[in-house]
Amino acid sequence: MAEPDRPDRGERHLVRQLRALLTRPLDAGDPTPDAVPFGDDMCSINPMDPTLLATVDMLMDGVDFDSKVNDWRSIGRKAMAVNLSDCAAMAAKPVAAVCAVALENSLSAQDALDLHAGMQDCAAVHGCTIVGGDTNSWAQPTVISVTVVGRCGSGSGPVRRDGARPGDRICVTGPLGGSILGRHLTFEPRVELAARIAAELHPHAMIDVSDGLAIDLDRICEASGGGAVLAADLLDAVIHDDARRQAAQDGRPAREHALHDGEDFELIVAVSAATPEVACRRLGLFPLGRMRAAPGLFLDDGGTLEPIPPRGWEHFR
Amino acid sequence: MAEPDRPDRGERHLVRQLRALLTRPLDAGDPTPDAVPFGDDMCSINPMDPTLLATVDMLMDGVDFDSKVNDWRSIGRKAMAVNLSDCAAMAAKPVAAVCAVALENSLSAQDALDLHAGMQDCAAVHGCTIVGGDTNSWAQPTVISVTVVGRCGSGSGPVRRDGARPGDRICVTGPLGGSILGRHLTFEPRVELAARIAAELHPHAMIDVSDGLAIDLDRICEASGGGAVLAADLLDAVIHDDARRQAAQDGRPAREHALHDGEDFELIVAVSAATPEVACRRLGLFPLGRMRAAPGLFLDDGGTLEPIPPRGWEHFR
Repeated sequence: MAEPDRPDRGERHLVRQLRALLTRPLDAGDPTPDAVPFGDDMCSINPMDPTLLATVDMLMDGVDFDSKVNDWRSIGRKAMAVNLSDCAAMAAKPVAAVCAVALENSLSAQDALDLHAGMQDCAAVHGCTIVGGDTNSWAQPTVISVTVVGRCGSGSGPVRRDGARPGDRICVTGPLGGSILGRHLTFEPRVELAARIAAELHPHAMIDVSDGLAIDLDRICEASGGGAVLAADLLDAVIHDDARRQAAQDGRPAREHALHDGEDFELIVAVSAATPEVACRRLGLFPLGRMRAAPGLFLDDGGTLEPIPPRGWEHFR
Repeated sequence: MAEPDRPDRGERHLVRQLRALLTRPLDAGDPTPDAVPFGDDMCSINPMDPTLLATVDMLMDGVDFDSKVNDWRSIGRKAMAVNLSDCAAMAAKPVAAVCAVALENSLSAQDALDLHAGMQDCAAVHGCTIVGGDTNSWAQPTVISVTVVGRCGSGSGPVRRDGARPGDRICVTGPLGGSILGRHLTFEPRVELAARIAAELHPHAMIDVSDGLAIDLDRICEASGGGAVLAADLLDAVIHDDARRQAAQDGRPAREHALHDGEDFELIVAVSAATPEVACRRLGLFPLGRMRAAPGLFLDDGGTLEPIPPRGWEHFR
């Protein structure tokens, strides 16, 4: 697990600096306020067409997968799935993918084909086509970078992370924690569910749980302005069985695994306070709590507000 | 230098296998014959819109650059420039880029910012905006993957590599060889020249010299069907001074450096036999020879045809 967030370093700090460096006229003059700003799950390719989006994720052997344990088809599947999960987070329909790989020299051609077959397995399920790539080899551990271009339907996206409002209902699409026991490789990105959520609930904000519920919800809070309060009993209801198994192994509370483990790839959804809970439950969403105007993440445990550290998986610590 | 091409292995063989694996309905049923097939410098994102293209290139420390010698701004610049060169090869206008990096842990935040500033320097010159990315760190050498989305003007692209015809004039946009002495980091991608070539010469095929004149011209031959004959005196006229300097250092003929060195990032252009040489020269193109129906690459040295091995930089050898 990572250290508590320090504002002067860490991945989030670097991304803020990169955003300042790369800020484009779009963000300053803002002729197209619908375009997605730098730092969301996907980004607008063309300010004139805010429904055309791109995302990229890089996976490294020994960090995001372990080629000594995982088979190449599963690894390829994950490399595609994490990107499709970013599409889901914006309620975008994945259209096309390009895949760049630096394969460790010891890999066989069959390993490379298995890796790409795994990517294709996952892409095809969600209507995405692998249209090209770049294949390289080197003496170091394998690196895989997948870029996916997606398209939002008119009127139902992109759903950004910066639109949540005080009072919004916070929901999640499935149980959380302990994905390291296997689900981080086998999860199904919530592409189709996200499209239904966007069409039926018109959510104010969405993000996928890639680095952990607490840190990813904090990203919604930071982008939207404000904070969030989760109800302890609702949190307990979304603790995954894997979180309990993991807790039994390492002695840490299962609730902590649900809050801070990464790679669940469920969606955190903020919907209007006016949306009935039953409308959320009908789509399989689990209510967790509410957004509020004041900053900070808190757990409401029988009336006592306990701060939740916004930590999870971060690079550059 | 790499071994002579063996059809049963090497990068080209793997790409052929990947193409077979990933072949999409587009290639089989082909409802949109204008869409760019898998394996060109860029690929069509959406078969319904063949002018929207993407390319990806991954650069690895110790292979494509050397962080012990090169500064991070120059490295970033190259990572962007190689992608913009792919845009040039299709006569596409670069629109947006996403950048994924796995940075070696020892890098500082300033190194990461310099790297991205270098990418932006190069992108901005050619009208391309960096819209997003993925920042990671790990204990291994740095890997950079840049994806660029580009757009072709109506009627002037994409210029593919598979359209060359027997008798076509083969030209190149600049002198070749010895880029390792520094030009591989500082070259300017031929984006604007490519647009002029496309608009004025309507070329049958283009490719950028990323892996070497011989191997990249052979890729045009393979994709188009047919072969090529280069004139020795014309080849000698495009030997770069760096190729001669390199030749003086390593004792290999300067002509070999011009034929087989990678990373010149000039464009090889095949134009109709009916295009006057003066029209090519007016755009700064250097004539090199002609396409022919029979396969194989040859050097015409005073009437004698010498085979040119189609070798250059290849992964997976």
